[in-house]
Amino acid sequence: MIAEAARRELIDAVGPKSLLDREEDLRLYEFDGSVDKARPDVVVFPRSASEVAAIARIAAKHDLPVVGRGAGTGLSGGAVPRHGGIMVGFSRMNRILELDFENERAVVEPGVVNLELTNAAAPSGYFFAPDPSSQRACTIGGNVAENAGGPHTLVYGVTTNHVLDLEAVLPDGRVLHTGALHADPAGYDLNGLLTGSEGTLALVTKITVRLMKKPEAVKTFLAIYDSVDDCAATVSEITARAITPAALEMLDGTLLRMVEEATHAGYPLDAAGVLLIELEGLTEAVEDQAEQIRLACEACNAREFRVARSAQERDLLWKGRKNAFGAIGRVSPFFYVHDGMVPRSRIPATLRRIQEISSACGLTISNIFHAGDGNMHPIILFDARKPGDMEKAQRAGFDILEYCVSVGGAITGEHGIGMEKLDLMSKQFNEETLDLMRRLKRIFDPAQLFNPGKLLPTGKGCTEIRQPPIARPEDLL
Amino acid sequence: MIAEAARRELIDAVGPKSLLDREEDLRLYEFDGSVDKARPDVVVFPRSASEVAAIARIAAKHDLPVVGRGAGTGLSGGAVPRHGGIMVGFSRMNRILELDFENERAVVEPGVVNLELTNAAAPSGYFFAPDPSSQRACTIGGNVAENAGGPHTLVYGVTTNHVLDLEAVLPDGRVLHTGALHADPAGYDLNGLLTGSEGTLALVTKITVRLMKKPEAVKTFLAIYDSVDDCAATVSEITARAITPAALEMLDGTLLRMVEEATHAGYPLDAAGVLLIELEGLTEAVEDQAEQIRLACEACNAREFRVARSAQERDLLWKGRKNAFGAIGRVSPFFYVHDGMVPRSRIPATLRRIQEISSACGLTISNIFHAGDGNMHPIILFDARKPGDMEKAQRAGFDILEYCVSVGGAITGEHGIGMEKLDLMSKQFNEETLDLMRRLKRIFDPAQLFNPGKLLPTGKGCTEIRQPPIARPEDLL
Repeated sequence: MIAEAARRELIDAVGPKSLLDREEDLRLYEFDGSVDKARPDVVVFPRSASEVAAIARIAAKHDLPVVGRGAGTGLSGGAVPRHGGIMVGFSRMNRILELDFENERAVVEPGVVNLELTNAAAPSGYFFAPDPSSQRACTIGGNVAENAGGPHTLVYGVTTNHVLDLEAVLPDGRVLHTGALHADPAGYDLNGLLTGSEGTLALVTKITVRLMKKPEAVKTFLAIYDSVDDCAATVSEITARAITPAALEMLDGTLLRMVEEATHAGYPLDAAGVLLIELEGLTEAVEDQAEQIRLACEACNAREFRVARSAQERDLLWKGRKNAFGAIGRVSPFFYVHDGMVPRSRIPATLRRIQEISSACGLTISNIFHAGDGNMHPIILFDARKPGDMEKAQRAGFDILEYCVSVGGAITGEHGIGMEKLDLMSKQFNEETLDLMRRLKRIFDPAQLFNPGKLLPTGKGCTEIRQPPIARPEDLL
Repeated sequence: MIAEAARRELIDAVGPKSLLDREEDLRLYEFDGSVDKARPDVVVFPRSASEVAAIARIAAKHDLPVVGRGAGTGLSGGAVPRHGGIMVGFSRMNRILELDFENERAVVEPGVVNLELTNAAAPSGYFFAPDPSSQRACTIGGNVAENAGGPHTLVYGVTTNHVLDLEAVLPDGRVLHTGALHADPAGYDLNGLLTGSEGTLALVTKITVRLMKKPEAVKTFLAIYDSVDDCAATVSEITARAITPAALEMLDGTLLRMVEEATHAGYPLDAAGVLLIELEGLTEAVEDQAEQIRLACEACNAREFRVARSAQERDLLWKGRKNAFGAIGRVSPFFYVHDGMVPRSRIPATLRRIQEISSACGLTISNIFHAGDGNMHPIILFDARKPGDMEKAQRAGFDILEYCVSVGGAITGEHGIGMEKLDLMSKQFNEETLDLMRRLKRIFDPAQLFNPGKLLPTGKGCTEIRQPPIARPEDLL
């Protein structure tokens, strides 16, 4: 509950129809795609930067936390209002303001759904490159907040590579413009600083992004293996042949069986692993590289190499990948999707280490991930109804990411830090670097009201104050 | 002159053979590639991050400015020690520490020359993508400081897109690690923030960069035009055909004649402009696109379309572009190279505006630039011996960049802000954004000792305290 004065001021700012604070409404805004939850005191739906600025000023006046929310599909708790307060929902700031194909850019409001921008650009032969698995639901504002990636990050890079300019509201209500509409920014790179800052520095209200040209040809392959090591080794073999596929995804045997049972996409039930490989480009180039890909897979003992002969067959190959999380949900109501980076050459060793951690804790850990850029997504299956299982899952995730850092990788590739990985920041960064990040936070947000308790450990030591595990069975039934 | 105590401490830190402070030695370190100059009090040549940290602590203790210097090829005054103090030369930190082809990355010290990294990687089929015109001399540390680009920025992006991790010394002597060796950074993007910060926040002491695969085929073309408008319009025509060349450079007629007289590269003396176009990729793809490029040029009334038939012919086509500045020097001992970004679609209008500014001020302005990404490089010819000419040249540069901003572009594409463009920062950014940048500066460098008087206007209004113009004839004779 917020003070009645604050509530009245919020209604003045956004109108009575753009504010929710009934208990039954607020329950819908407790979650994102992570295992954490917390209830906001009030949810508001601004329609403009000036309304967002008014909300920020009201929050500052009444000392209330402010948490932005796109579609709530994030996987690290970025949109969970850990300390309550005001949730700013961007669903009514969902207009595509400009499509400028000649200069290959678009201007959008933060609530535009990722795939809607691509759909709007498609008739002219363009698309928006970042393609998280949630792209049918997630918003571009959320993509910016979490610096989202996707299967095609391998060739196109993460969201930060596609942001040209941001309009953003600071915690004191002032409005920034971070870049130029048509250029990398001059001066300090505020585009880069805000992208991936998880709503802890500012609320983004307008985004200028690059648009990419659709490739002339796309070709999709599935390589099937009897050995996980062979499957993983193919990734380096493809690199050695100087080919960068548009996507290079790996699914291990455990995951494959869950996915096949759910989707009937035609994945083999007895394989140890598969690679889903996609090439893009000019027709002739794709044909030439396709042969190289086949040779690389065969050199690493692929037992079968399938080629999608039509758009329909291509969709079928992707179907399992894109619906993986639903498939896992059929088998295990509780699972924990992790996100870490390792050097490509260390993928086989990392998979072995994950298997060791799985055996040691007695939980199944399955792997589906962006192999081409070493972006691992171990999925830990557990049963929150069994005492201690949740803690075991969290410990296993921690151990896996600690290993990723130890081989030169990182604690996140595309899901962000959120609430989930606060403890791990000190594994990735030394105290000097964390101290500097804390000082960065304070110049934007001296009162620590924007998304408090996210991205940065408080510096009180390794153990963060953590809400009790929230994936209780009654929440999911 | 610095205090004797400070001098002794510096000698203790780096050794007597790594310090210069005789008048005749210091004169060599007054300049970079810009029109500004100022003399350091002392130049030191550290060999390690711990020596750099010791220098920073000595500077802090004695309140001395600290300015890093790579090869001194910068074009905006970044390496000019405006307020004297300690210059840190990185020429002895010039080792390539690691080449990891399997993971497509390298670890280098800041003093490694740009082209040396590419030469070291070439036998294995890799290269370092940022390729400033000065790449035979400039250092990777300098590339990071200025976020350097080059002709191939069009397809590979500027330096920031190639930096994975930085080790950097803060003004208080602490050492940061900004990223991960194999991943985009987690948390706030300190890689992005330090890249392009022009030595105002930290001194970079180790750099992990991406390596790129050499393309299978390269093809180079020269399209010759009787009209500047037709020449510029071709850039949009190529975009409309969904082709991104690896490089797309434009030279106007004035420049062409200067270059041809100096290099005898075979450029036509009577043309209004030429495009130098390069395609990269798989052989078949390049062949296919080459035909599209030819059609695009013809559609825009190119009077001639030349194809380089050999590596030798290719080098000849590039020869004029790469030696342009020497060629201009033969004609005019004083010239001012500018750097601004405009939307590709606004290139024709921008060239017309530059012509108007040229006519109004009575100075010849020639154009050689990265047309593909709208990165203009107007070159203003003047005679510093004529009273008022230098001021006219500076005014013309200011007017051109103000126009770039007005059409949605930016005041720099790849040369940085340095001393040169301080006045223009307020054209690019609103006061809120500049204020935030100033606060960013202060958390890294509260005493304002690292490269003072660069990148950020002081906030004292539009007119910066500026040294008197330094390109005096005696300096160049």
